[in-house]
Amino acid sequence: MSLRKLFCLALIALGGSYMVNAQEALSHKVLHHSPIVNSDSTATFIVNAPKAEKVTVSGLTSQPLEMQRDSIGNWILTTPQLASNLYTYSIDIDGVRTVDPSNVYVARDISALSNVLIIPGGNADLYAVKDVPHGSVSKVWYDSPTLGMKRRMTVYTPAGYEDNPDKKYPVLYLLHGMGGDEDAWNELGRASVILDNMIASGEVEPMIVVMPNGNAEKAAAPGYTAEGMYVPDGRFSVAPQGKFENAFKDITGYVDSHYRTIPDKDHRAIAGLSMGGGHSWRTSLLNPDDFGYVGLFSAAVRWNGNGVDDSEELVVPLKRQFANPPSLYWIGIGKDDFLYGLNADYLKLLDSLSLPYQYHESEGGHTWSNWRDYLTIFLPKLFK
Amino acid sequence: MSLRKLFCLALIALGGSYMVNAQEALSHKVLHHSPIVNSDSTATFIVNAPKAEKVTVSGLTSQPLEMQRDSIGNWILTTPQLASNLYTYSIDIDGVRTVDPSNVYVARDISALSNVLIIPGGNADLYAVKDVPHGSVSKVWYDSPTLGMKRRMTVYTPAGYEDNPDKKYPVLYLLHGMGGDEDAWNELGRASVILDNMIASGEVEPMIVVMPNGNAEKAAAPGYTAEGMYVPDGRFSVAPQGKFENAFKDITGYVDSHYRTIPDKDHRAIAGLSMGGGHSWRTSLLNPDDFGYVGLFSAAVRWNGNGVDDSEELVVPLKRQFANPPSLYWIGIGKDDFLYGLNADYLKLLDSLSLPYQYHESEGGHTWSNWRDYLTIFLPKLFK
Repeated sequence: MSLRKLFCLALIALGGSYMVNAQEALSHKVLHHSPIVNSDSTATFIVNAPKAEKVTVSGLTSQPLEMQRDSIGNWILTTPQLASNLYTYSIDIDGVRTVDPSNVYVARDISALSNVLIIPGGNADLYAVKDVPHGSVSKVWYDSPTLGMKRRMTVYTPAGYEDNPDKKYPVLYLLHGMGGDEDAWNELGRASVILDNMIASGEVEPMIVVMPNGNAEKAAAPGYTAEGMYVPDGRFSVAPQGKFENAFKDITGYVDSHYRTIPDKDHRAIAGLSMGGGHSWRTSLLNPDDFGYVGLFSAAVRWNGNGVDDSEELVVPLKRQFANPPSLYWIGIGKDDFLYGLNADYLKLLDSLSLPYQYHESEGGHTWSNWRDYLTIFLPKLFK
Repeated sequence: MSLRKLFCLALIALGGSYMVNAQEALSHKVLHHSPIVNSDSTATFIVNAPKAEKVTVSGLTSQPLEMQRDSIGNWILTTPQLASNLYTYSIDIDGVRTVDPSNVYVARDISALSNVLIIPGGNADLYAVKDVPHGSVSKVWYDSPTLGMKRRMTVYTPAGYEDNPDKKYPVLYLLHGMGGDEDAWNELGRASVILDNMIASGEVEPMIVVMPNGNAEKAAAPGYTAEGMYVPDGRFSVAPQGKFENAFKDITGYVDSHYRTIPDKDHRAIAGLSMGGGHSWRTSLLNPDDFGYVGLFSAAVRWNGNGVDDSEELVVPLKRQFANPPSLYWIGIGKDDFLYGLNADYLKLLDSLSLPYQYHESEGGHTWSNWRDYLTIFLPKLFK
């Protein structure tokens, strides 16, 4: 898009009159739509900051992209071509990291608030809301007697759930990583959008997806407890290891008694990323009759300490789990992931024991981009 | 709080080490907690912007508050004493309106993203999450044959709803203003937090609260339809007037068939703000047997044109509605509201017809501060 066309668009937006007497916030005007996704998979950003000396956009490419100032103080950038994806980006104005003043779509990753941008035409078409039947997304509080508290979780029920009161559904338990919470998979992972799209296309079976909070010491995401609006810092104790996994029966118990599930191994999946991959790994290992499908996304497959363990303490339950093996044991990791070596060691252990699995090795590292992608690969394999 | 104490706090936060290899976003460090709410109901803000020439905080007082620069480029402000409330504020750095770089708690009001800050010790204690039983908050899609689309709404079910499958509940329909959507009452209005707190204290009856989208031409809030992540502009057609109200039976029909409601006038309330006040007014007027409780918050009580109408077209249905009067007909407005005159005229009309109502006149104008407050006054009057 030419700059001339861009400014025409900006002027059109600027010219729109507001119904200023209608509601409080209408007094704040947005001068332009930014970013604009162009047809050649570039995106154009405009930030009005006449007094700034340097403005950059971070999160789209490996290095921040510098914006160029025009004569009246608009900073403008048209990016290189971007691969289809959901990007979380931020704007840096003279050293202050902030969100794009012209983009209200944001997502929080631990203590960082970033803007969301979708470049269509590939993978990200699954992350964009489409005109398909939508499931419901609920924030519910379940009782965890094991942890001694009521805890918040996100539950996705597929389109049709409310209108088919006799139909029962399989369940995927989908777990976040360290520093995340029960909002993470749906906001950064776009889980409900992906499910809506892939169920609508027939690629994925209608299922309930349960996204609990994996921090055994917190009842809910930041801002949803009596602790108030503190700064989320991502530091939370995972010790004693196994605390969350040991309380997992409280989650499955609640779900099977409050939703129309098919409460057996063939209709129960568990998957997670990073720490949540570790949770999925240990929970399925310790409850071999409960989960017929297991997904380990960039998983922290640490039994004790930092490495893969080949002690009897791990090998015995592994053999027991695979005596009646899960229908799917899926492992995905990026070549640049800091857990790549750990996962490679784990694959060797599985190989040495002749235990079957599916392995997906991707480019990139420990990123939501990969985890969303893994989810779209994993989901079609479930409950078939 | 002294600056010295403030910097000690900042340094403590700065010193915290991150588990940097744990998850993607942990690389973004928050240098300090801002704002800090002090025990004297002031709040202290810190923004690190060494190159800025002027930094202000807007939204707390009638005029923006100027921050003061220290020698290393931190901009600091301790506010005057603030009344207990939930504030939405923004930071202006050299003319760029943005959110506080150190506060991840934000809310969107049409096209403005602002930070959220709670000053406790008064009204706002009802807006803060407490350690009480929490209801569920769901985003569900209901079918509206009248409008020819599936539409998204927010449904609050009170704590205990899931665990008492034989219990039936009354329903409050709670409607937003122009430019708002099905997220507005829960995010800016803190509806579910207020309900949790007031039900827990016994002041309010457990009830279902339904928050639909009042824009008859949109299926859902910005970002939740196939239109994608456009800039919300708050401009939407309300013509032909009555379109939303005429389709209201699709909402009550869905709710009564999908939730455990008590589907009669004595257990059904409708309330809304501004345009949603107009919707509540007309919907209850046109369906006199459906709503036993009516709440008009800064309501746009326009029948035709801009003024209050005393034509037969309005007076006849009004008399019909009050022939078997609602248990509560509650009108709240601020002295500075631009709709004050309209509401005063409407009260005169009601008086001239000897129709009973409760009237609450507050300070202030057309603000979420008033609407949250009205909700806390209105709720205890319902279903008793």
